[in-house]
Amino acid sequence: MTVLHLAETTVRKRKSKCAQVCSVKSVKKRLPIVGWLPKYTFTTLIQDIIAGITVGLTAIPQGIAYAVVAGLSPEYGLYAGLMGGFVYMIFGSCKDVTVGPTAIMSAIVAKYVSSYSADFAVLSAFLSGVIILLMGIFQLGFVVEFISAPVISGFTTAAALQIASAQLKAIFGLTGAAGTYFAASIYNFTQNIGTLKLWDTVLGFTSIAFLMAMKKLGEGCKRTDGAGKQMRWFISLARNAIVVIIGMLIAFTVKTITKGDEPLALIGEIGSGIPTFGIPPFTSVVGNETYSFPDMLKALGPESIVIPFVSILESVAIAKAFAGGVQVDATQEMIALGMCNIFGSFVRSMPITGSFTRTALNNASGVATTAGGIFTAALIILALSVLTSTFYFIPSASLAALIITAMFSMIDYTIFCRLWRCSKRELFVLFLTMAVSLGLGLEYGIVAGVLTEAAMLLFATARPSIKSVHVKSDTGRQSLMITLNDSLSYCSAEHVRREIFKATRISEALIVVDGTNLESMDTTVASNLMAVVKDLDKLSRRIVFVNFSPEIQKMCLVLHPNASDCFISAAKTEDVIAKVSTTSPPLSKVLVD
Amino acid sequence: MTVLHLAETTVRKRKSKCAQVCSVKSVKKRLPIVGWLPKYTFTTLIQDIIAGITVGLTAIPQGIAYAVVAGLSPEYGLYAGLMGGFVYMIFGSCKDVTVGPTAIMSAIVAKYVSSYSADFAVLSAFLSGVIILLMGIFQLGFVVEFISAPVISGFTTAAALQIASAQLKAIFGLTGAAGTYFAASIYNFTQNIGTLKLWDTVLGFTSIAFLMAMKKLGEGCKRTDGAGKQMRWFISLARNAIVVIIGMLIAFTVKTITKGDEPLALIGEIGSGIPTFGIPPFTSVVGNETYSFPDMLKALGPESIVIPFVSILESVAIAKAFAGGVQVDATQEMIALGMCNIFGSFVRSMPITGSFTRTALNNASGVATTAGGIFTAALIILALSVLTSTFYFIPSASLAALIITAMFSMIDYTIFCRLWRCSKRELFVLFLTMAVSLGLGLEYGIVAGVLTEAAMLLFATARPSIKSVHVKSDTGRQSLMITLNDSLSYCSAEHVRREIFKATRISEALIVVDGTNLESMDTTVASNLMAVVKDLDKLSRRIVFVNFSPEIQKMCLVLHPNASDCFISAAKTEDVIAKVSTTSPPLSKVLVD
Repeated sequence: MTVLHLAETTVRKRKSKCAQVCSVKSVKKRLPIVGWLPKYTFTTLIQDIIAGITVGLTAIPQGIAYAVVAGLSPEYGLYAGLMGGFVYMIFGSCKDVTVGPTAIMSAIVAKYVSSYSADFAVLSAFLSGVIILLMGIFQLGFVVEFISAPVISGFTTAAALQIASAQLKAIFGLTGAAGTYFAASIYNFTQNIGTLKLWDTVLGFTSIAFLMAMKKLGEGCKRTDGAGKQMRWFISLARNAIVVIIGMLIAFTVKTITKGDEPLALIGEIGSGIPTFGIPPFTSVVGNETYSFPDMLKALGPESIVIPFVSILESVAIAKAFAGGVQVDATQEMIALGMCNIFGSFVRSMPITGSFTRTALNNASGVATTAGGIFTAALIILALSVLTSTFYFIPSASLAALIITAMFSMIDYTIFCRLWRCSKRELFVLFLTMAVSLGLGLEYGIVAGVLTEAAMLLFATARPSIKSVHVKSDTGRQSLMITLNDSLSYCSAEHVRREIFKATRISEALIVVDGTNLESMDTTVASNLMAVVKDLDKLSRRIVFVNFSPEIQKMCLVLHPNASDCFISAAKTEDVIAKVSTTSPPLSKVLVD
Repeated sequence: MTVLHLAETTVRKRKSKCAQVCSVKSVKKRLPIVGWLPKYTFTTLIQDIIAGITVGLTAIPQGIAYAVVAGLSPEYGLYAGLMGGFVYMIFGSCKDVTVGPTAIMSAIVAKYVSSYSADFAVLSAFLSGVIILLMGIFQLGFVVEFISAPVISGFTTAAALQIASAQLKAIFGLTGAAGTYFAASIYNFTQNIGTLKLWDTVLGFTSIAFLMAMKKLGEGCKRTDGAGKQMRWFISLARNAIVVIIGMLIAFTVKTITKGDEPLALIGEIGSGIPTFGIPPFTSVVGNETYSFPDMLKALGPESIVIPFVSILESVAIAKAFAGGVQVDATQEMIALGMCNIFGSFVRSMPITGSFTRTALNNASGVATTAGGIFTAALIILALSVLTSTFYFIPSASLAALIITAMFSMIDYTIFCRLWRCSKRELFVLFLTMAVSLGLGLEYGIVAGVLTEAAMLLFATARPSIKSVHVKSDTGRQSLMITLNDSLSYCSAEHVRREIFKATRISEALIVVDGTNLESMDTTVASNLMAVVKDLDKLSRRIVFVNFSPEIQKMCLVLHPNASDCFISAAKTEDVIAKVSTTSPPLSKVLVD
C-alpha cells in the first residue's frame, strides 16, 4: 500500500471520526464511565473496594520508593498515585489498569530533580500529559510501534540495572551521591564503599531475603483458593507494605531504646497532608537562579520527549496484556493517560503511567470496574493525612530492598537466549540499547536503539532480494526471469538497476522482469528501470516488463513514452515469450528516443 | 533478505576484496591510468588536446563565476579547476568526467565564506575529500541512494534559484550584501533596488539575451558536422568565454574613453600566478579572532556533512549518465573524487565535484581518455600566469549573466508535471525540500527532504497491505486466507496483529495465514503472531500458519513452543483444510500454555 493510499484512508477515517464525535456512541467511547456507571451494583462496589484497598497497600510503599528513585521527597510518590485513580476512572477503558508512579518514569526524571528541582518533575508531568493527550486526539499513538521488542527489552533491563544500582548507596548506608545513571552510580558506589554502615546493610539484605521468601510463599495461590492459600496469597501481595512496616517498627524501637541515637538511615521528615490544588510550576527557583518557562524547557532538553513516549509505551502495553483478547482502544488509553498526567501535575505529581505490578494485582484482586482506583486513592489520602509522621521512621535500606527486589522481576532474562538463537542482529540492537542506556542515560539508550533499528530497516528496504531464474518455454526459447518484490522504494532503485544489469551479464537470454507481486513503486525506481531500458538498448538487448499494474506502467511511460512495447501482461512465462516473438519491429529499434 | 544475511554477504565481499587488493587486476582497477596509458597513441593525444582546450574555454569563465557565487576572490575558482584534472587523470574511471568547481558546491560554501573566511572553504574541501575517500574505501557510497530523485530535484531547483537570486545584486549593480540563501537574497534585493545602476543592468540583460541566442545557435550542430555547422557548434560552446571577453573589452574601452571613470562594476584585482603548494589551513584568523581547528570544525557545523554527500551525488550521477550502458565503479569514482578534493585543498581549492556542463562538453568534444583534464589544467595555469591583470576588467554583470543563464538549464521543469500525474506524495517531498532549501538554506533542505522521505518509507513499511480472502475448499469448508507480504518488520507487528484480528471478526471460518511469500520477519512480529494465537485461543478460534520458512517457524516456536501444530506446509488451500480437519486434538486445546 502506498503512503498516499494510506493518507487517503486516514482522511476517510478522520471524516468518519468527525461524524462519530457527535453521536451518543462516541460519548460512551470517550467517557467510558458513562457506559459502566449506570450498571454499577453493590456487588461490583464490594469487588472494587477490596481490589482498590489491596492495590493501595502496594501503592503506598511503592509510591514512596519510586519518589526516592526520582530523588524526590517521599510524599511526591503519594501525590503521583492520587490523581491517577480518579481521572482514569472517568476516561480509562480497561478496568484493570492502574495509573501511577513507576520505577522507569521515576528513573528518567531523576536527572532533572537532582540537577534542578522537584518543579521540573511536575512540569514534565504536565507537558507529557499535554503531548500524550494531543497524540491521542490526533491518533499518533502509532509512533510507539517504531520501538521494537528488543529495544524495549534493552531499555527495561538497563532501567532495572540503573534503578537497582542507584539504591546501592541506600542499602549499604553509604554517604555521597547516588548517581543518575548506571555508570555514575557504580562509580560512586566504588568510591564510597568505605563509608558502609553495618546495620543498614544487615537490614537491607534481610529485607531482600524476606521479600523473596514472601514472593515464593504466594506462588500458586489465588484469591479464590481456600483460607490457608488465600492467606498466603494475601501476605505475599502485601509483602512490600509488611517489609516497610517491620522496618519502621525496628527503627522506632531502636530509637526508643537508644534514646535518640539513630543507627539506621531513615527517610526522615516528609511533607504531610493532602496537596493543594494549584497550577503546575511554569517558573522555578533553583538555588539563587530563577528559571523562566523557556529556561525550564531548555533544561528539560529535547531528550525529555522520551518521557511521554515511554509513558504511552508502558500504559498501552499493559492495557493490551490485560485486555484478554479484546482489541485495546489505544486512542482512548492515551487520552486517559494524558488527562491523568495533566490533572496530576496540578497536585504536584511526577509523570505517571500504567504500573505493571499494581495492574496485575488489581486484576488478581478481582477488580470489576475502573472505580477500584478511587479506593486506592482514598487509602493514599488517608496515609497522607494521618501517617506522614509515622513514615518518618521508614528506613532507607528497607525501601532500597523493596526497589532492588522489584527490579529483579523487571528483567526479561529469557530474551537474551531467545535472540541468540533466532536473531543475532536483534540481540545486537538489544545490547546497544542497554549499553547506551547504562553508559549515558536511559533516554539516550532508547533513542539510540530506535534510530539503529530504523537505519537497519531502511537498509534492508534498500536491498530487497531479487531472484532471477532461467526459464525455458515449450518452443525451447530461454528467458531470464527476474522477480520483483511487492514494494520498491527510491533507496532500492540503484540496487534493482544493478541486479538487472548483473543478470544481463550472466545470460544472453531475453530478460523478463516480473512485476506480478509489485504493489507499489516510486518514480526514482521507475526512472532507474527506464534507464535500464535505455542502457540495454545501447547493447541491443531485449527486456520486457510483465504484469506491471497500470499505475506503475503509467509512472514509467511518463518518463519514457517509447517504452510502451516493453510492458506486457501474461499469465505464464511461455505466453511472454510467445508475445515477444510476435512483436515487430524488434524492441531495440522501438526504444531509441 | 535480512540485514544479517546482507551483513554476511558484505563480509564475504570484503574478504574477496582483500584478496583482490594484491592482484595486478586490482591495481588497474584502483589506478585506471595504468590501464590506458600504455595504449596511448598520437591520435588519442590530439583528441584529448582538442577536448581539453575546449573544456578549458568554459572552465575559466565558469571557475571565475563560481568563485563569485561562493563569495571568494575569482582566482579561487581557477585554483579549484586546476588539481581536479591532474588527479582525476590518475584515479578517474570515466573518461568524460570533469572535476572542478560547480555552482551547487559554491552555493553551499558561500555561507562559510561570508561568515568567516576563504580558509573555511579550503578546509571544507580537505575534510570533504577525506570523508569521500574513506567512504569510497569502506564502500559506504550507498548512503547517497537514500537521496531520492524528488529530493535531488527539489534541492537542485532551489540551488538554481538561490544562485540566481544571489546574482540579482550584481546584474542590477546594486550596493549592499547579496545574501547566502534565497529568502535573504530576495529580501536584500527588495531593500536595495533603489541603488540600481543603469549600465550594469543593460550589460547584464544584453549578455543574458546573447548567451541564450548563442545556445540556440548551436542546437542540432555537432563537432563532426560540416564547416558551417561545426563553426556554429564551437561558437555556441565557447559562448561563456565570448560573453566574458566582450564584457572585458567594453569595460576596458569605456575606461579608456572616460579616462579612469568606471561606470560598470568590475571584479577588480585578483591574485595572480600559480598557487603555492601548502598544507590546508587548520587555523584561521577572521577579523581579530583566531580560530583553532576545533573552532573551525564547530563553525562548519554538523550541516557541513552535506558537502561530501552532495559532491558524491553529483559526481556519481554524472559518471553514470556518461557511462554509456557500462556499470560505473562508484567506489573508484569516490576514491578519485576524494583525492581530487584532498590534493585540491593543498592549492587552496574550494570543494569540487563532477561538473555536468563541462563533462557534457568534454564528451561532445570527443575526449579519448581522462588525460583531457591536464590540457584544461594547462590552459588554467596559462590564464593564472598571464591573464590575471586582464581579468581585472571582467564586469560583474557579465559574470552574473553567465551564472543566471546557466541556472535556467539546471532546473528540471518536467518533473513537476510528471510527479503531479504519477505521485503527489513525491511532489510534496519535492516542494518541501525546495521550501526548506529556499527559506533556511540548501543544506537544511536536503536533510529535511531525506528525513521526510525516510519517515514516509518507514511508515509505509509499518503498514504493509495484508489481503484477506474467503476460500472454499472442494468439501465445502470455508477458510479465511490472510496473505502476508515478503518482509515484515517490528513496526508492522501491531498492524499485522490488528489486521488478523479484524479478519477474525468478519468471519467465523478457519483462519489461514499464508506465509508463502514471507522471506524475512523479526522477533517483534513473531511475538505478536504468537499473541494472536493465544488471544484467539481464548475465543476458541482456530488459526493455522501455512508455508512459513523453517527459520521463521523457529522464531515463533521459541516464543510459544506449544504452537508447533499451528504450522503446516501445503501446496493449496484445499490441502490446508484437509490437514487441519485431521488434526486432533483440536488446536484450541493444544494451545493453552
